[in-house]
Amino acid sequence: MKAKPIVSNYVKERKILVKKSILLISHSQKVTDGIKEMIEQMQKSEEVQIFSLGGINGEIGSDPMKIVEAVNESSDAASYFVFADIGSAVLNSELAKDMLEEEQQQRYHLVDAPLVEGAFAAAITAGITDDTQQILTEAQNAGKKGWE
Amino acid sequence: MKAKPIVSNYVKERKILVKKSILLISHSQKVTDGIKEMIEQMQKSEEVQIFSLGGINGEIGSDPMKIVEAVNESSDAASYFVFADIGSAVLNSELAKDMLEEEQQQRYHLVDAPLVEGAFAAAITAGITDDTQQILTEAQNAGKKGWE
Repeated sequence: MKAKPIVSNYVKERKILVKKSILLISHSQKVTDGIKEMIEQMQKSEEVQIFSLGGINGEIGSDPMKIVEAVNESSDAASYFVFADIGSAVLNSELAKDMLEEEQQQRYHLVDAPLVEGAFAAAITAGITDDTQQILTEAQNAGKKGWE
Repeated sequence: MKAKPIVSNYVKERKILVKKSILLISHSQKVTDGIKEMIEQMQKSEEVQIFSLGGINGEIGSDPMKIVEAVNESSDAASYFVFADIGSAVLNSELAKDMLEEEQQQRYHLVDAPLVEGAFAAAITAGITDDTQQILTEAQNAGKKGWE
C-alpha cells in the first residue's frame, strides 16, 4: 500500500485550508472584542485567526502600530483581511499598510465593507474557502438588511 | 417688554431640537456598548439618546423585548432610528416593530445601514437637525471607506 490514497481520503474528509487573519479596527476595543466573540462562536476553524485591535490602552482611539504588530504576529497567514469602521480607524488601517514590507502589503487587503457585517461574512467564508476574491466579495456584499 | 423677543433670541443662539432615540441592536452587548461610548464622546446633545441593546444578559444573543422596552422608556422621542448588524438581530428589530402600537410604529425607523458606521452618522446628524430624511440619508451613505 502506498501512502497516496490515504492522504487523498484525508483531503476528501477535511478540506485543508491555509491560514487567514481577520483584523478588526475601531476606536472602541469593546466593539472589536465583541465582534471577535461573535465570530468565534460561529467560526471555529483554526485557520481563521481574529485580531481585536480597537482602542488605545482601553481608551477611545486607534493605533496603526497595533495593526503592524498583528501582521507580524501572524506572519504565516496567507492573507490579512482588514476591516475598519470610521475616521482615523480607516486612516490608520491605510497607514499601517504603508509601514509593512512590500511582500506583506501584497497579502494585506483593505476591505471596503462595514466593520461588523463585513468581518463576520469574511470570517465565515474564510472558514470554508481560500479563495481571496470570494472572501472579499462576500464581505463587500454584507450589511444589506433589505429594509426600505 | 414682552417675552417674545427674548424667546426669539434664544432660538437664534441655540437651535431647539426635538428628542430622537438611536437604538443599537447586535448579538453582542460589547459591540453596542462600545458604539454608544464612541458616539457619546462626539455627540453631547441632550436631544439624542443612545440605547445599547445588544446581547441577552451579557451573553451572545438578541431580544426583541429589550427593543420594545427602550421605545417605551423614551416614549417622548419624535423618532427612533434602529440599527442592527446581522441575522436574528435584524429579525428581532423587525419583530419589535410588530409588537409596538401603531402610533409608535410610525416613529420607528428600521435603517438599512451598517450598524457602527450608520449609527454614528445618524447620531451626529441628529445632533444638528430634526430632518428625519436627512438623518436616514446620512446613515445610509455611511460605511464607504473608498477602498478599491
